[in-house]
Amino acid sequence: MPSEFDIIRQYFMLENSRDDVSVGIGDDAAVLSVPAGYQLVQSMDTLVAGVHFPLETSAGDIAYKSLAVNLSDMAAMGATPAWFTLAITLPDDDSEWLQSFSKSLAALAQKYNLQLVGGDTTHGPLCISICINGFIPTGTALLRKNANVKDKVYVSGTIGDAALALVAWQGQYLLRNDTTYYLNKKLNRPEPQVELGLLLRDYASACIDISDGLAADLGHILQESKLGATIYFEKIPLSNEFKLNVIDDNLAIPLVLSGGDDYQLCFTVRAEKQSVFEKIVNEKNIKVECIGEIESVKGLRCLLDNVEIDIHEAGYQHFSSD
Amino acid sequence: MPSEFDIIRQYFMLENSRDDVSVGIGDDAAVLSVPAGYQLVQSMDTLVAGVHFPLETSAGDIAYKSLAVNLSDMAAMGATPAWFTLAITLPDDDSEWLQSFSKSLAALAQKYNLQLVGGDTTHGPLCISICINGFIPTGTALLRKNANVKDKVYVSGTIGDAALALVAWQGQYLLRNDTTYYLNKKLNRPEPQVELGLLLRDYASACIDISDGLAADLGHILQESKLGATIYFEKIPLSNEFKLNVIDDNLAIPLVLSGGDDYQLCFTVRAEKQSVFEKIVNEKNIKVECIGEIESVKGLRCLLDNVEIDIHEAGYQHFSSD
Repeated sequence: MPSEFDIIRQYFMLENSRDDVSVGIGDDAAVLSVPAGYQLVQSMDTLVAGVHFPLETSAGDIAYKSLAVNLSDMAAMGATPAWFTLAITLPDDDSEWLQSFSKSLAALAQKYNLQLVGGDTTHGPLCISICINGFIPTGTALLRKNANVKDKVYVSGTIGDAALALVAWQGQYLLRNDTTYYLNKKLNRPEPQVELGLLLRDYASACIDISDGLAADLGHILQESKLGATIYFEKIPLSNEFKLNVIDDNLAIPLVLSGGDDYQLCFTVRAEKQSVFEKIVNEKNIKVECIGEIESVKGLRCLLDNVEIDIHEAGYQHFSSD
Repeated sequence: MPSEFDIIRQYFMLENSRDDVSVGIGDDAAVLSVPAGYQLVQSMDTLVAGVHFPLETSAGDIAYKSLAVNLSDMAAMGATPAWFTLAITLPDDDSEWLQSFSKSLAALAQKYNLQLVGGDTTHGPLCISICINGFIPTGTALLRKNANVKDKVYVSGTIGDAALALVAWQGQYLLRNDTTYYLNKKLNRPEPQVELGLLLRDYASACIDISDGLAADLGHILQESKLGATIYFEKIPLSNEFKLNVIDDNLAIPLVLSGGDDYQLCFTVRAEKQSVFEKIVNEKNIKVECIGEIESVKGLRCLLDNVEIDIHEAGYQHFSSD
């Protein structure tokens, strides 16, 4: 079996490309330069086999998702991604698995000019933690707490696809065959909304990424901003593939409001900025949809045909007993 | 069972104290300021239950060690520790365990003015990853690659105590009772050499912390510096507790050279700086010992009674089949 050092050397010494990395992998720590006038934005997310992805998920998909969920946190802050560290716990030394994992990781990292600068390889049940770093011009981070009354509530992309793919994968729902590829891609290879996040620095008052479900994550914005909101279920963007498979509102509602794993952005825009914002995202061909409005009355209300939906679920929580 | 959010709120919202933390726990990412003229130093280490510590290790010891091994990486770079993120995977929600864990973590963090700024709580087999961040004045990081011929090789503290404690804990060696407390403390609560690391910015040419064993870690300095060294086994500092228990050189040699887990520093000092350096560490009451010298002939040689020891072991490696 190769040593820990061999694994790092063989699979994770990816291209050293960034000028702001003085020391990358191979010393006791990385030495990095944050540009003057910028703040460091740092986040860490863990994926555990059998909890955050089914055990049979491919190495390439696991690598992609591990990094994508972290990139999504950068997007939610409006940050430019820069570097990451990787802690990977492996049950064994499967060189084919490691090859696929590192190839997929490197491809996504390269797309965002993101450099792997350190980490740890350990032996145990499969678990991946990534700590990601990015920059923002000082004082421009998109926070959850700055929504205002009358701000418009937006989401990007389409909502509910990942949740639908998951229940199908778990055998709880039978998909039409010709949508399986599309939906599984949404679950396993979510596209982090980094470009939109950067744009939102100039337009959004508050922002979060949708990992735990729209209701729960918008709920965080409302809680931190000490406000409420009404959203309209009909306005929430759904993919054709979702609509083809889910006709019954009773199934659509939990998938869309509480499903999670979409890694789209949910954000608020001041009413006076709305038209300029929509013009710009149209020009850039970024899909966003206004789904409601911030209000002073606390709590989240979601209407369907003008009737309020009872939002039972608080979103997917790893320790929930539900 | 409490939700993921409850666990973070209840146990890990430690005191927010540092001025350079604009956003800590509670948003999609932390927002942090690196002071002008300084570089960011970042490292990540993982501890897996049953691999890096015996399953019966107390929550307080696990928390302490998880953070201490990361602080040790800061020490090895000469960095001032500042912030950390914590990814903790828990098999269940044991509030007593979590209480002890977070209390111990907070105490060590406070000692080094270190702030927890983010992380992730997940469900699965016990595993702790910490990503630590510190600063150094730009260009002053202590690297492995800058040792020079005739530099003196030093180690701090005493070597071999943690390895002895581990073999005793594993039932492979019978300790004298009155040394068990001392040795277990060395294994479970190693003292990161942060103060020494800061001092070494002005004196050391190369530096590493001893996590994998003196031979392996000094070996990294030699490999990166493309040089060799001779060290003298008699000069390696051993504790009285070690000497009381280990009389046979055949046991002492592997424990001291390959044992690992001591988290002392191994570093090189230019010959002309040696006397000033030793004067200063004496004044500061920091224990260091010169154990040998860097040479142009590659490889590590260790002499005992003028006879070269055969250094079989390459240090503790997690994937080693030995």
